Amino acid sequence: MKNDTFVVNSTARIEAFSDGVFAIAITLLILELKVPVISVFQDKRDLMIALKNLWPSYFAYVFSFLIIGIYWLNHHYIFQLFKRVNHMFGILNLVFLMTISFLPFPTAVFAKYLNDDVHRYSAVTFYTIGLLLPAIAWTTTWIYGSRDYRLIDHKLSPDFVRKLTSLYSWSTVVYVLALILSLVNEWLGLATCVLLTLKFLLPPVRPVYRKG
Amino acid sequence: MKNDTFVVNSTARIEAFSDGVFAIAITLLILELKVPVISVFQDKRDLMIALKNLWPSYFAYVFSFLIIGIYWLNHHYIFQLFKRVNHMFGILNLVFLMTISFLPFPTAVFAKYLNDDVHRYSAVTFYTIGLLLPAIAWTTTWIYGSRDYRLIDHKLSPDFVRKLTSLYSWSTVVYVLALILSLVNEWLGLATCVLLTLKFLLPPVRPVYRKG
Amino acid sequence: MKNDTFVVNSTARIEAFSDGVFAIAITLLILELKVPVISVFQDKRDLMIALKNLWPSYFAYVFSFLIIGIYWLNHHYIFQLFKRVNHMFGILNLVFLMTISFLPFPTAVFAKYLNDDVHRYSAVTFYTIGLLLPAIAWTTTWIYGSRDYRLIDHKLSPDFVRKLTSLYSWSTVVYVLALILSLVNEWLGLATCVLLTLKFLLPPVRPVYRKG
Amino acid sequence: MKNDTFVVNSTARIEAFSDGVFAIAITLLILELKVPVISVFQDKRDLMIALKNLWPSYFAYVFSFLIIGIYWLNHHYIFQLFKRVNHMFGILNLVFLMTISFLPFPTAVFAKYLNDDVHRYSAVTFYTIGLLLPAIAWTTTWIYGSRDYRLIDHKLSPDFVRKLTSLYSWSTVVYVLALILSLVNEWLGLATCVLLTLKFLLPPVRPVYRKG
Repeated sequence: MKNDTFVVNSTARIEAFSDGVFAIAITLLILELKVPVISVFQDKRDLMIALKNLWPSYFAYVFSFLIIGIYWLNHHYIFQLFKRVNHMFGILNLVFLMTISFLPFPTAVFAKYLNDDVHRYSAVTFYTIGLLLPAIAWTTTWIYGSRDYRLIDHKLSPDFVRKLTSLYSWSTVVYVLALILSLVNEWLGLATCVLLTLKFLLPPVRPVYRKG
Repeated sequence: MKNDTFVVNSTARIEAFSDGVFAIAITLLILELKVPVISVFQDKRDLMIALKNLWPSYFAYVFSFLIIGIYWLNHHYIFQLFKRVNHMFGILNLVFLMTISFLPFPTAVFAKYLNDDVHRYSAVTFYTIGLLLPAIAWTTTWIYGSRDYRLIDHKLSPDFVRKLTSLYSWSTVVYVLALILSLVNEWLGLATCVLLTLKFLLPPVRPVYRKG
Repeated sequence: MKNDTFVVNSTARIEAFSDGVFAIAITLLILELKVPVISVFQDKRDLMIALKNLWPSYFAYVFSFLIIGIYWLNHHYIFQLFKRVNHMFGILNLVFLMTISFLPFPTAVFAKYLNDDVHRYSAVTFYTIGLLLPAIAWTTTWIYGSRDYRLIDHKLSPDFVRKLTSLYSWSTVVYVLALILSLVNEWLGLATCVLLTLKFLLPPVRPVYRKG
Repeated sequence: MKNDTFVVNSTARIEAFSDGVFAIAITLLILELKVPVISVFQDKRDLMIALKNLWPSYFAYVFSFLIIGIYWLNHHYIFQLFKRVNHMFGILNLVFLMTISFLPFPTAVFAKYLNDDVHRYSAVTFYTIGLLLPAIAWTTTWIYGSRDYRLIDHKLSPDFVRKLTSLYSWSTVVYVLALILSLVNEWLGLATCVLLTLKFLLPPVRPVYRKG
């Protein structure tokens, strides 16, 4: 295949570039937090109260930070399994990074309207879409690279590869479910996203290699 | 030549710095998206509609992300062909990076006015200029480095070097054409830019070396 | 332990990612400074006066820059002592980075209200909380990694390890003290933070290894 | 000396962190450019005119980009001469990076008021201060590291070391001169800064080593 003529037997520069995008997207999340503006003649505790009322922003910051951080840890993890990259994989990884660096925007929408009874519904739905996009891109990238051992280490056990494919596919399904639930009840959709994230805070499965 | 006394036989640090600028410029694109401000007494679907109406921003984000990403892939690609760098090349690469990190600004102008019948004309023209600048800087950098094998690998075939020079020069010409077209009809200019970008999503030509 | 099945004998990628977050968080501090807006018919020295009146912002910028810079130097320092990383350590380091990249926000609050007699009280208290969080995360990460030589070099002397644990724990205690003091008198709380920072500008202790 | 007990015979991580700060500071310059807001009922060329009227911003962007880029090239250059780093050098380099990542702020002030007859005076003076600060920090860092060959390669010729010290000291003097001139006439001060920058676009002196 023409496409495969350009396989590069190193993942170093693609990892460095991805690390850069991850590090910037995760740090830009803080820009969503705005300093409260307080009129002058007030009690000295008013600023502290205004800062406390920003709790939706703190929650959104912490949650999105963990989400991006976990994707980084997993990116680190699966790149140990890849042995080479090709142009198509570079494009898919780029699309995945596009969904990661998009996250500060739904996070800002979510933070602004989480405490707003009228608009919380749309904000949570939009945030769930924001979380679904990287899940889809991630699963697609993994399936492209692992199908028929296209780019991954040939010594990995087929069972282990299938297990990862299944894990990533199910996670995507859970985000779709969270999206549907958020259309019914926004707290239910959000809770589903939080639970899935807690699951991914657990250590990943150890890679299993073929015997002999 | 005095200039050449300072040839460095490594491209590592210039690549690391360039990767940093690429990663930041591509991630800053998201700051162009602004959270919609909605007055309080409204329907719960209003925020979702406002978010949908941001489609020019999403399009601008995705398009500029792909443009910068493709330049990064190509930067990665041609740095495999360079064997050394000198001061002039460092300056030219700096000017190229200046045009890349300028892109978030025409992107923001484009996103804000793409859906505005009066100002779309100027916005598309300005965006096309924003796309033309890195094309000119890129082609200049390539021609400087490849002319008489100044900095590239001496083993590369002359035909292959000519083919790349021709590809980059023609792309610049197409952006000039897109700029002229955008003065006539903004959609025509934009379509030309999109088509050229799709072409660059295809895998690059495999480097060809001299025989023997 | 399941958790330890995934020990990685290299700290390279976690250091690169952390360096990225440090570099971005420290550079984003500048975004807190806003260009003064001056109405047109005024004296030509008015802009200079407005720029001078930004001294709380300059102080906040310099102080937070030094704080993040010192954490970076110390991160560099203790990663020379670590020989391997595991998943839990990756999560703890992520939480630490979350507190570092949070700092631009309390810095902006602090800068805006430092010169405001009514709101200074809350602003300094909030800033002190902002400084306490990375201290807690740092000490926790160190204790997790050094306890029973879980991840650090086995050749380090037990005395030296105890000395570092004690240093980091006491620093956290001093930040708690600064927080309590800031509730009594904001200048006292701030002075405590400044003194602790000056102490950390001194060179760190040289690592001591077991004999023989 | 206590201070020297902690000499590290590698400059790799300090270079990587510095590269990160350089890359981010240079890319953040674009955030100074604001999309013009145009009221709706106007001519279709009005946006283009508004974009043309941003020329002070383009000039400020290009100029500061070149300044930071040249510092990066020079940082790259002198780190080839350093063989080791100590804690004090780490702090001095940090202070230097603080002045570099401060530059987007005076750049934004300069861009906003360059075309304003009343406030140009203060804006240029402030920008010149912004350029003077990294020059002072740079020269201090170089003198600290090169004095008595504290951290630089012992094989470098004393003449060459003296020549660099003299070059950096004189550049600082020229920025002081530019600052004084800007108090008399802002265009004179600005022209001095531009000329000095053009001089640094020339290739740096080739390092000279001792004979034998």
